[in-house]
Amino acid sequence: MDPTELDAALEAAVEIVEAAGPIALRYFRQPLAVDNKADAGRFDPVTRADREIEAAIRAALEAPALEARFPDYGIVGEEHGETRGRSARRWVVDPIDGTRAFMTGMPAWGMLLGLAEGDACLAGVVHQPFLQETWLGRRRGSLLKSANGATPLRTRDTDALADALLYCTHPSMFPAEPERGAFARLEAMVRMTRFGGDCYAYCLLALGQVDLVVEGQLAPYDIVPLIPIIEGAGGIVTGWQGESAHGGGLVVAAANPRLHAAALERLNVSEH
Amino acid sequence: MDPTELDAALEAAVEIVEAAGPIALRYFRQPLAVDNKADAGRFDPVTRADREIEAAIRAALEAPALEARFPDYGIVGEEHGETRGRSARRWVVDPIDGTRAFMTGMPAWGMLLGLAEGDACLAGVVHQPFLQETWLGRRRGSLLKSANGATPLRTRDTDALADALLYCTHPSMFPAEPERGAFARLEAMVRMTRFGGDCYAYCLLALGQVDLVVEGQLAPYDIVPLIPIIEGAGGIVTGWQGESAHGGGLVVAAANPRLHAAALERLNVSEH
Repeated sequence: MDPTELDAALEAAVEIVEAAGPIALRYFRQPLAVDNKADAGRFDPVTRADREIEAAIRAALEAPALEARFPDYGIVGEEHGETRGRSARRWVVDPIDGTRAFMTGMPAWGMLLGLAEGDACLAGVVHQPFLQETWLGRRRGSLLKSANGATPLRTRDTDALADALLYCTHPSMFPAEPERGAFARLEAMVRMTRFGGDCYAYCLLALGQVDLVVEGQLAPYDIVPLIPIIEGAGGIVTGWQGESAHGGGLVVAAANPRLHAAALERLNVSEH
Repeated sequence: MDPTELDAALEAAVEIVEAAGPIALRYFRQPLAVDNKADAGRFDPVTRADREIEAAIRAALEAPALEARFPDYGIVGEEHGETRGRSARRWVVDPIDGTRAFMTGMPAWGMLLGLAEGDACLAGVVHQPFLQETWLGRRRGSLLKSANGATPLRTRDTDALADALLYCTHPSMFPAEPERGAFARLEAMVRMTRFGGDCYAYCLLALGQVDLVVEGQLAPYDIVPLIPIIEGAGGIVTGWQGESAHGGGLVVAAANPRLHAAALERLNVSEH
């Protein structure tokens, strides 16, 4: 994709997500009426905030002036499904990633908007309106915009698992073998594991505060917008077999290629 | 304790902790040189921030003008041990609760200062300088001070475990039976469990966003400053047998007495 068009799309994405921030803040830390859209057994809350934010972001993406600048793009979102474009390019929306954090008042959630073309994740934005932070990136570089101005993002050069700080949103992301055991093996090797990160853990990886994020059961919209932010900061994101992570599922995000290789090796060791 | 003296002590505690906030922010999200003070196997990072903050808070508590107003109080802190007073009253300092959150750039840590007298936890403060929030309370009432002004804290009236949102900092707080199984039983009953809260989870409970915080392996300074904030918001904090939680160890914080009783019952059921 032409770098000028990509940068223009990223800039538009930042504006659109930031404009929807006040919707999230109207619901954050308010008593919530939470629906349960999941089938029995799994808890997957959907809030009104989720739906309203995605509707607002879609409306902005579908506005004639924006469609004229970025023609033929489709839209894929968590709440309202897919609107096909006339090209392989698509906006990917997760209105609130980290619904559990959101529901409990913890500011580790984010509003995600990404741009993908086929398997390639080209640009991504995470906006955290409570913290007044916007994390944005594409392969040529990533930034954190905050009250302190714009900070270039750069991952750490940790290359030994024994020194790595690992995040994962919840142990229930690995309900069965062999993933459960594989994650436990990795956990036993790293310096520290912390749960409860959601999208914000990937941002902290791009910021150079965390070395690994290893998760499972992700939807494409959970990860597509994050990949370019991490890649633009020097990190790498793939599936557990090293494949493209654009489809979600089992994901490894690492601060650098050496640590990534070490994590994949540990996750794929056979104990038998 | 005389309510006027208690309120004056709480006000002084707020001033002292807030004044130390900039020290924490000088280290937060900076590359950290982290020592390891724990013996083999357990990871308990101590940062320079931890030590500097506690030293600053102690210096403020020991300043002659403050000692004259609150005579004979001792000081107990995470980093610098105990300074005995000439009464049963003591300030309890945890300079950074949530060191793992702090190290990884996640704003779920807090600076804690409490006041206890014997087994009674009289007043407490949590300051989160990155979020510019101060949570404070004593039995007669609790408040959140933030950019939005002062908000009275009030816990939720959730009374069924099936509706409860549960926090716990990390599953490794229950490394062995019977605690491990007891926590798993509780987890199976509640609506949702989230890990990764540290002191901030207790604040969210006081705010009415979370219903239960169930933890283990706490030190006294981890919990003493939090108890009055929760009690002043209508909640209850005890050990797993219903005993005073001032000594740390295994702790249950609940939004209200009925939910507390339901959680204790579930934690103490024998499966045999």
